[in-house]
Amino acid sequence: MIKRLVRSAALLTPILLLTTSVIAQEQQFADLGDFRLASGEVIKECRIGYRTFGKLNQDKSNVVLFPTWASGTSEQLKSNIGRGRLVDDTRYFVVAVDALSNGVSSSPSNSRRQPRMSFPKITMADVVNTQHELLTKILHLNHLYAVLGVSMGGMQTFQWMVSYPDFMDRAVPIAGSPRLAPYDLLQWQTQLDAILHDADWNQGNYTVNPARAAEAEFGALLLTTPDHFNQESSREKVFAEIERGKADSHFDANDKIRQVQAMMSLDVSAPFKGSLEEAAARVKARTFVIVSTKDHVVTPGPALEFARLMKARLLVLEGDCGHLAPSCEAGKVNPAVAAFLSD
Amino acid sequence: MIKRLVRSAALLTPILLLTTSVIAQEQQFADLGDFRLASGEVIKECRIGYRTFGKLNQDKSNVVLFPTWASGTSEQLKSNIGRGRLVDDTRYFVVAVDALSNGVSSSPSNSRRQPRMSFPKITMADVVNTQHELLTKILHLNHLYAVLGVSMGGMQTFQWMVSYPDFMDRAVPIAGSPRLAPYDLLQWQTQLDAILHDADWNQGNYTVNPARAAEAEFGALLLTTPDHFNQESSREKVFAEIERGKADSHFDANDKIRQVQAMMSLDVSAPFKGSLEEAAARVKARTFVIVSTKDHVVTPGPALEFARLMKARLLVLEGDCGHLAPSCEAGKVNPAVAAFLSD
Repeated sequence: MIKRLVRSAALLTPILLLTTSVIAQEQQFADLGDFRLASGEVIKECRIGYRTFGKLNQDKSNVVLFPTWASGTSEQLKSNIGRGRLVDDTRYFVVAVDALSNGVSSSPSNSRRQPRMSFPKITMADVVNTQHELLTKILHLNHLYAVLGVSMGGMQTFQWMVSYPDFMDRAVPIAGSPRLAPYDLLQWQTQLDAILHDADWNQGNYTVNPARAAEAEFGALLLTTPDHFNQESSREKVFAEIERGKADSHFDANDKIRQVQAMMSLDVSAPFKGSLEEAAARVKARTFVIVSTKDHVVTPGPALEFARLMKARLLVLEGDCGHLAPSCEAGKVNPAVAAFLSD
Repeated sequence: MIKRLVRSAALLTPILLLTTSVIAQEQQFADLGDFRLASGEVIKECRIGYRTFGKLNQDKSNVVLFPTWASGTSEQLKSNIGRGRLVDDTRYFVVAVDALSNGVSSSPSNSRRQPRMSFPKITMADVVNTQHELLTKILHLNHLYAVLGVSMGGMQTFQWMVSYPDFMDRAVPIAGSPRLAPYDLLQWQTQLDAILHDADWNQGNYTVNPARAAEAEFGALLLTTPDHFNQESSREKVFAEIERGKADSHFDANDKIRQVQAMMSLDVSAPFKGSLEEAAARVKARTFVIVSTKDHVVTPGPALEFARLMKARLLVLEGDCGHLAPSCEAGKVNPAVAAFLSD
């Protein structure tokens, strides 16, 4: 990796420590310079967005890394951070990090030198590697107490566990996957095709619109379950809701494509000739795997298999909320995570 | 309705009766002339395709109408007809009928005078009205022993029960619906949008391609369940399977649009100010409702509600096959249907 650090590490550390109370929770950026990807391609002037919550303790032993879900930002993680929430920032120093291509960190939509589809393809390992560099080179944190993430954040958590097994004590992948099941690959490909076949896209309007329908419609179709959807919606309001969803979606189609490709590329077993068993054997973190049996976005099979191989602690959510079960069943999930982290 | 019959009824009847053994199972067509739709629009030179199986008995009391599912043809129904299958043509005279806009009956893809999107929108009531005219005016059958259909065929069955309550003794809607649940409306709208936003479609290539992806990808996503899909497929072969599905799909995008709109228009309660209860009270047929709890194409709520209101016989399939449960669980369904019909 090219590690051209724009900020001086020696300069940054005291600034960070002195100003934590001021800049905590605010959007910050780490400039990683030109960042070499596993493919050999380079993200030019790579920038990683993050926010910190809580206080770093004296021996830097209370850091929890909290990466974003797909199409999500560190700002959206805020509501999951706090006492009684998913991560307690009165106990932990939480680094909420914007995954590559989320429109905040370097992304097709914001890259001056590699705009739109000239932005290179990234893998989940690349996403994690940028975060490792953020932590070690910019924040001077050489160890994490835990990595914890939901959905694509759970995928990053699995990747972290295998890419940097000595780097954390604990890991909590929630509604995540160590490699996508066939159904998941199919549903993402269908979303990609919806964008790539879109007339707006093909006319060079490479912006928001083609992603809106995919986000709104596939979100509604797959995020929960048909049973849950039919209970919450009605014949009268379903289309108004979808139109509102489209209007509310501002996620760039280019950014979505690169994140979807990163998820589809995810396979923690790849360095081990496809053996999930060998990948699991590499993990040193104590792990708490949380899945939802009716999850239609990240189907739970691969995470369950990995949990079994690792003999990890496991929480299986059975409700109708599907992929959204971790928030629908927050009353069950949040205390279980808190107990695991303080155990 | 305009009932300009092209073939003379007096001429047709003896031909039908004399040649049943010769032309049975072969594709036949009834010319209904210009057919007026509920909207007031007209299908010009309306033609309805059908096939007959088995023998009409002396008092014409053994007729079973078997309409097609979405994107399906009467040819595709063949494998469901026979002793031990869904409908036994050794006992019943089966009229398998091609629903409007299936590419065999009058459709955007085959209408000379109303090609492509100049073909009028149709409703499920229109579809059933053409079949009523086929039966009464062409085949001179004024009563059915039963109507039985699967999926969109089950929707037609519900529509038949309410539109022509005196016309049949029994009805067997399988994986059908009396009006679509919000989830069903959403998934069809998503398929419509996939076609209507498609670049090929917008460049005027109004043919097969835009429908292929929708048929193949949404078929794979929704026809069974994620669990079933992940058991049957693999990470290695999932995309080859989808490409094969696209290559195998020859259903015209225009035809698909009009059938999807017909399904979305379905609401047997519409003439009763939205009261399913009043619609159910109108039904005279003894009814056997079959649903699949994990059906993600035709979610079972509305059919279950209608069955409850009618106090109909009910079979609830619980397996992982989702919308395909009636064929996956044919060993349970076929004998249950046979028992109901001979009861």
